[in-house]
Amino acid sequence: VEAARRTRTLRHGKPASAELDERCINTIRFLAVDAVQKANSGHPGMPMGAAPIAYVLWDSFLKHNPNNPAWPNRDRFVLSAGHASMLLYALLHLTGYDLPIEQVQQFRQLHSTTPGHPEYQRTPGVEITTGPLGQGFAHAVGMAVAERWMAAHFNRPGHRIVDHYTYVLASDGDMQEGVTSEAASLAGTWRLGRLVCLYDKNGIQIEGPTDAVFTEDVRGRFEAYGWQVLGPIDGSNPSQLESAIRQARSRKAQPSLIVCETVIGYGSPDQGTEKVHGAALGECNVRAAKRALGWPEEPPFCVPGDVRKHLLRASARGAAAEAEWERRMLEYARSFPDLEQQFRSQMRNELPSGWDDGLESLLDSDSKPMPTRGASGKVLNHVARRIPYILGGSADLGSSNKTVLRDEKDFGADSYASRNMHFGVREHAMGAIAGGMALHGGLIPYTGTFLTFSDYMRPPIRLAALMGIRVIYVFSHDSIGLGEDGPTHQPVEQIMNLRAIPNLTCIRPADPHETIQAWRAAIENTAGPTALILTRQKVPCIDHTQCAPADGLLRGAYVLWESDKKTPDIILIGTGSETHIAFEAGRLVAQLGAGSVRVVSLPSWELFDRQPASYRESVLPPEAPVRVAVEAGIRLGWERYVGLRGGVIGLDGYGVSAPWPVLYREFGLTPENVAATALRLLRSAT
Amino acid sequence: VEAARRTRTLRHGKPASAELDERCINTIRFLAVDAVQKANSGHPGMPMGAAPIAYVLWDSFLKHNPNNPAWPNRDRFVLSAGHASMLLYALLHLTGYDLPIEQVQQFRQLHSTTPGHPEYQRTPGVEITTGPLGQGFAHAVGMAVAERWMAAHFNRPGHRIVDHYTYVLASDGDMQEGVTSEAASLAGTWRLGRLVCLYDKNGIQIEGPTDAVFTEDVRGRFEAYGWQVLGPIDGSNPSQLESAIRQARSRKAQPSLIVCETVIGYGSPDQGTEKVHGAALGECNVRAAKRALGWPEEPPFCVPGDVRKHLLRASARGAAAEAEWERRMLEYARSFPDLEQQFRSQMRNELPSGWDDGLESLLDSDSKPMPTRGASGKVLNHVARRIPYILGGSADLGSSNKTVLRDEKDFGADSYASRNMHFGVREHAMGAIAGGMALHGGLIPYTGTFLTFSDYMRPPIRLAALMGIRVIYVFSHDSIGLGEDGPTHQPVEQIMNLRAIPNLTCIRPADPHETIQAWRAAIENTAGPTALILTRQKVPCIDHTQCAPADGLLRGAYVLWESDKKTPDIILIGTGSETHIAFEAGRLVAQLGAGSVRVVSLPSWELFDRQPASYRESVLPPEAPVRVAVEAGIRLGWERYVGLRGGVIGLDGYGVSAPWPVLYREFGLTPENVAATALRLLRSAT
Repeated sequence: VEAARRTRTLRHGKPASAELDERCINTIRFLAVDAVQKANSGHPGMPMGAAPIAYVLWDSFLKHNPNNPAWPNRDRFVLSAGHASMLLYALLHLTGYDLPIEQVQQFRQLHSTTPGHPEYQRTPGVEITTGPLGQGFAHAVGMAVAERWMAAHFNRPGHRIVDHYTYVLASDGDMQEGVTSEAASLAGTWRLGRLVCLYDKNGIQIEGPTDAVFTEDVRGRFEAYGWQVLGPIDGSNPSQLESAIRQARSRKAQPSLIVCETVIGYGSPDQGTEKVHGAALGECNVRAAKRALGWPEEPPFCVPGDVRKHLLRASARGAAAEAEWERRMLEYARSFPDLEQQFRSQMRNELPSGWDDGLESLLDSDSKPMPTRGASGKVLNHVARRIPYILGGSADLGSSNKTVLRDEKDFGADSYASRNMHFGVREHAMGAIAGGMALHGGLIPYTGTFLTFSDYMRPPIRLAALMGIRVIYVFSHDSIGLGEDGPTHQPVEQIMNLRAIPNLTCIRPADPHETIQAWRAAIENTAGPTALILTRQKVPCIDHTQCAPADGLLRGAYVLWESDKKTPDIILIGTGSETHIAFEAGRLVAQLGAGSVRVVSLPSWELFDRQPASYRESVLPPEAPVRVAVEAGIRLGWERYVGLRGGVIGLDGYGVSAPWPVLYREFGLTPENVAATALRLLRSAT
Repeated sequence: VEAARRTRTLRHGKPASAELDERCINTIRFLAVDAVQKANSGHPGMPMGAAPIAYVLWDSFLKHNPNNPAWPNRDRFVLSAGHASMLLYALLHLTGYDLPIEQVQQFRQLHSTTPGHPEYQRTPGVEITTGPLGQGFAHAVGMAVAERWMAAHFNRPGHRIVDHYTYVLASDGDMQEGVTSEAASLAGTWRLGRLVCLYDKNGIQIEGPTDAVFTEDVRGRFEAYGWQVLGPIDGSNPSQLESAIRQARSRKAQPSLIVCETVIGYGSPDQGTEKVHGAALGECNVRAAKRALGWPEEPPFCVPGDVRKHLLRASARGAAAEAEWERRMLEYARSFPDLEQQFRSQMRNELPSGWDDGLESLLDSDSKPMPTRGASGKVLNHVARRIPYILGGSADLGSSNKTVLRDEKDFGADSYASRNMHFGVREHAMGAIAGGMALHGGLIPYTGTFLTFSDYMRPPIRLAALMGIRVIYVFSHDSIGLGEDGPTHQPVEQIMNLRAIPNLTCIRPADPHETIQAWRAAIENTAGPTALILTRQKVPCIDHTQCAPADGLLRGAYVLWESDKKTPDIILIGTGSETHIAFEAGRLVAQLGAGSVRVVSLPSWELFDRQPASYRESVLPPEAPVRVAVEAGIRLGWERYVGLRGGVIGLDGYGVSAPWPVLYREFGLTPENVAATALRLLRSAT
């Protein structure tokens, strides 16, 4: 007790009595319970069990400023178990963020800032959208990477302007997801000492006790990853929590996992069972829980005055902490004015002026066929020399994806300032870590893998799109055009599947010049992620001085070439490597004198669909009788542009293992077939 | 040496000299090297390094019959590192499978049976399609589950008709993938002692030495999962391999991992580097490698006579082993004739006669609204009582997915015969394990999770579709109709994304009666997986005696109701919960006398697209001027049925957190909006 009291007095120089601690914790618990009860929907169990963990972290350690949720050097707090959203909302409300009690009372209602799971950019102080388990943990690894990278770049002796922690609150479910394993292994390899995971081990999941499905030794597993593992401690004991968090923070060369044993639904008659996990307790049990913990049954949403006062101190503390940091920044600016400007500019997501100097003409001397992945590699390297905070890498396919930065070192525990990241064969964690890096701010992350393996990283891609953050996904080997590796490696449905993700911009450039424009679009897109879809095989360089200029890509689609200026009888549409097939088919049709023909390059549905109707109709005039699209992927979806009576040259099933020119013939991806299809449709249309 | 020799003499009662071992191993190595060289494409490095591992396993332990790759009690061999396909083809060729040398010489060519990565059903003896890393390992866990389940069901004292092993050969990359972690944790929890993983630890991956990305202690990690870990051993030493495999086999209550240290590209001048991983060695290095290992430089594809004779003994041994098993089956049949018939019938994928008795009328007494997930739970339970080899479970959402079998126990280490599986929060492994169970044969696996989390299990869904195996995926909470959990949990693009996977049948039934038919279609579909897409919220029961019968679902789409028998002016198309909205909209239009109107229920694009054109046009007459589709998902894709001028009532972005009736109004998913859209289109069309 004495030791505990001694520890407690260290907190911000003011003693908080054990009794006040308990009242604060119960306030958090019952704000959650009452909000869930009012909504008649939500997850009371984890907030009730984990409230002490979150309280001690926020009250004693978390460096944040409720008045400015965007303070760059704040600690990041990630609620990986996003279903415990009310735990976070209660803390945001109580510590002074712009989240009034009326919003807490509107939990899970339309247009409230308290949605069912925490949503980035919807609620001040929410660092990341969570809910899909494992994602928060893995994104937090990315935040911790970004912190180390920024610290390595900007800190100078005597000037530590980046030195924050990243805290994760995770559940049993988070521990079970594979993406957590992947990310934890990398965090250990990278020795991310400022990453602290508080594991709320309540031993219950929806289908019952975790024992039935989770007998593994979590301590052993995380130690194998290279983590410091603390506990198990009593997760309801503030002193134990303080001591463990302090120990975690002090271990600088290893990430730390603190195993906190808790009781789900603590206080409820059904505590310790799955019944309290995902539904309102019910009026009767709400009252019973309040009685059990000595809490007033009425009114709901009760915040005692001393609790409010105690927790609101975070606002003043945060303002002071940020002011102190700003004073340090002033000194920093005096010594390193350029760095200071650079730091602020990066955190504002600004691009350096002149970042695109020479970009347009970069590949002018390359007129020989090359793969778009090769062009992409050249563009990336060009751009990365001018934007020193682009960094990323591949899930063990860097040499194939052409995502390696020349003359740059490998990111790692001994070289946090380096820019070539190696994720190992861990696509899922790669996607999440890149997302976490983008969320942290200050850098532009990119990833690389084969397009078919985008399937492994769907959840973080979706989250990035939902959150509206800038991540650039390089996906090479984009079709059966990869050849011999066969159907497991040949994407067929993946292009369409990525197009289907709202707010993900997919771009499949036709040639090196379009690839330049694709990178431009990706880098300038700060409102969401971009997928660059690139060939393994060589494609010709289009002579854009004779055809239309490649910056037509920025409008998603453009008229590449047409036989004459009339409204076309036939429109041929291609993307990526098949644009050339459409082009050749167009010339064939023109040579035959079979009608006027137009070839449209359509590298990005998303960019095109954002154009005004007048532009879209100028490219694809509704009165043109025949449209044929060609893409080396599934046909499904192309009716959007060719209609019910148009033609789609593509695949209906999987590819096969063979050299790619053989496959293109086998699947009819030839100018002759495209031309013949168009002419057949023209005959039946007229 | 003496100990090694003693060990070797145990192999099938015949000594193989160390020299012959080495010649066999080199034959395998250089068949791989020569095939890759001839194709000028492929992966020579791992076959060269891991040939001793595979040789010892196949020559000394693997129970299989090259004359009958379908022998039910054969050991399963899974090459998780599918890029080492030539290692497997060499063994299949040499041990007498129907894989002549001409096919080996056609490696990676069109129509050969030696594709770039092993493909199930293309090559005799290939148990599973592999290539995407981690999948083989996780599917193997499913095979080992199936073995234990079948053994528990069919073995009787004195009659062990199911007692095989499942062996996996895995790479560093396999160990890094999260799905491996998930599956390994379950294999440990389930104590799958007949699962043996040989880990080819060659320390090299594409981006360089594994140390850069993989510093974790794999032994510690797998011991934490509850595995027996053996080694590291010298993976080029047959005696060490034999001894370790024997030790692994004898540990019955734990799966085993054998860490085998090898040298990638063993023998090549570039051995031990990433250069030998994924490209032909080149003529010069092929010769150098042959010289280094004392192998004749010419001719390529050399198989010495004694090697062929030695390895071909597998055929005779296999025939004898199967014959011996058949003798045991005869005895078994005498004691347990029904069981014997049942066993054979299950292995032939047959359904018990009368499996669907009472199915059609199952829900006739339920006329009140219910969620289709609830209907699905009732149908599943009804069917599972009549098909005793349906088993599966959920990734910790069983009570929500309604996938729990009543009166059935939980599958686990102490109850392998039980049918309720619990996967924990591990969607990815769940999908792969279900796939492995289907591959093993003898049972019908199903899985359950929320539709949005289908994103976590895309790779095994795709593999099941590519392999053409029967797995049933139950996906509930299929739209914004799940309400308050918000956009992280509300699928938007997932329905279309599943439709895009070739050979996956997606069915989104409109009501309980269609749900019955959806299960019928899923169970009868032995040529590929089926996804059942189900609501959380209640939907009305359609009066199919007044409208069309629900078995129209089996044709994918059918005319549910029409205002009159004329060619309709307006066709309204709905799926799932939105079928009711289309239906009500149709009645509205009819009441207004605005034209003749038809309502089409379109629960399955795949089933509909398989119908003859005459049927499809009878449902959706091309001459009908106006078509409007309504689905609570993204609009993209629906142009397939409504054309360029049709209407699609759906979403363009993500959902939000709110009660579902609020959301349906917010997003215009109402009969009024559908009707108004149709009438507007009709006015502009006429």
